[in-house]
Amino acid sequence: MPLGRPIEFEPEQALEAAMQQFWSAGYESTSLRELLTAMDLSKSSLYQTFGTKQQLFEKCIARYRDGMACDMLERLQNAQSGWCFIEETLYSVVEETRGPIPPRGCLVMNSASEFSQGNPALAALISASLERFEGVFLQAVQRAQAEGDIPASKDARVLAQYLLTSMGGLRTMVKAGTDAKHIRQIVGVVLNALA
Amino acid sequence: MPLGRPIEFEPEQALEAAMQQFWSAGYESTSLRELLTAMDLSKSSLYQTFGTKQQLFEKCIARYRDGMACDMLERLQNAQSGWCFIEETLYSVVEETRGPIPPRGCLVMNSASEFSQGNPALAALISASLERFEGVFLQAVQRAQAEGDIPASKDARVLAQYLLTSMGGLRTMVKAGTDAKHIRQIVGVVLNALA
Repeated sequence: MPLGRPIEFEPEQALEAAMQQFWSAGYESTSLRELLTAMDLSKSSLYQTFGTKQQLFEKCIARYRDGMACDMLERLQNAQSGWCFIEETLYSVVEETRGPIPPRGCLVMNSASEFSQGNPALAALISASLERFEGVFLQAVQRAQAEGDIPASKDARVLAQYLLTSMGGLRTMVKAGTDAKHIRQIVGVVLNALA
Repeated sequence: MPLGRPIEFEPEQALEAAMQQFWSAGYESTSLRELLTAMDLSKSSLYQTFGTKQQLFEKCIARYRDGMACDMLERLQNAQSGWCFIEETLYSVVEETRGPIPPRGCLVMNSASEFSQGNPALAALISASLERFEGVFLQAVQRAQAEGDIPASKDARVLAQYLLTSMGGLRTMVKAGTDAKHIRQIVGVVLNALA
């Protein structure tokens, strides 16, 4: 065994647990007690390592954003075409109707809904996070344009923002109880606008 | 002065105040103290007249839904065409970027985001409320089809659900800080899908 004080917890694992908790329940609804249980930490370890509840939440949003953006980029790189990536991303929302109940939506969009522009630090973080997702959609749209699946005359950035908006709307509809069949039909219309 | 015990408060006015409070801050973030201040009521009057916090919230969602659905129907009846109504409704979101800060979105969509399917009574109320809004969009789409502005071959109900989804997405983007210019451009793409 190495010398020195043993590490009592794995910060990455604790942060992941906190992120899952905030994603499921939102910021305000998550109590300190729930965080401590989920993270398996003492109050002092939490404050020492992650700061205040809001600072912990900011770290969770950053973790979610980085994970999601990397996953999207990887899927885009491996996709058969830009169009395939866009289709797959939108249709993936259909699966959320069948996932663990209740559906959790997107942590960043949920936080936009919960905080709006009421908290400047969070508003800036949310806006920057959505720009990261939009950036991946922009690459996908530009690739689909180069591949001839989306007219080159269309403004790629506006289409990327439209896709982000549609993802937000679709995930709210899933949270509102819309079933798989209807989500699938709505995605069909969303895709229509790109042609 | 009429005989009898004077009415100490106006229930409709108190309910309106509670609705505005929940709309601005969400359910969980609204404390009992804030409700009592907004409604200008004592705790006992609140409980006696409106029941628990959740029961009050349900009454507020119903009030919001009825007001919004009536307003939409009236605007549809007075609109030059079904298409004009659809356009005006979507572009009205642009104004929310300029409204009182922070933007509040839609109380029903906000509640879907806050509660998802975690509370059966609220989930049912949210779902039924969105169906009311969808019903107005359905009438608008059918009218636009009869007027030749949307192809009759399209499934009107799916387009109505798509419009509802887009409204939800747009209002979340406004809460996330997207500015008027960008919202306007996204609406242009949303409308594209109907053609």
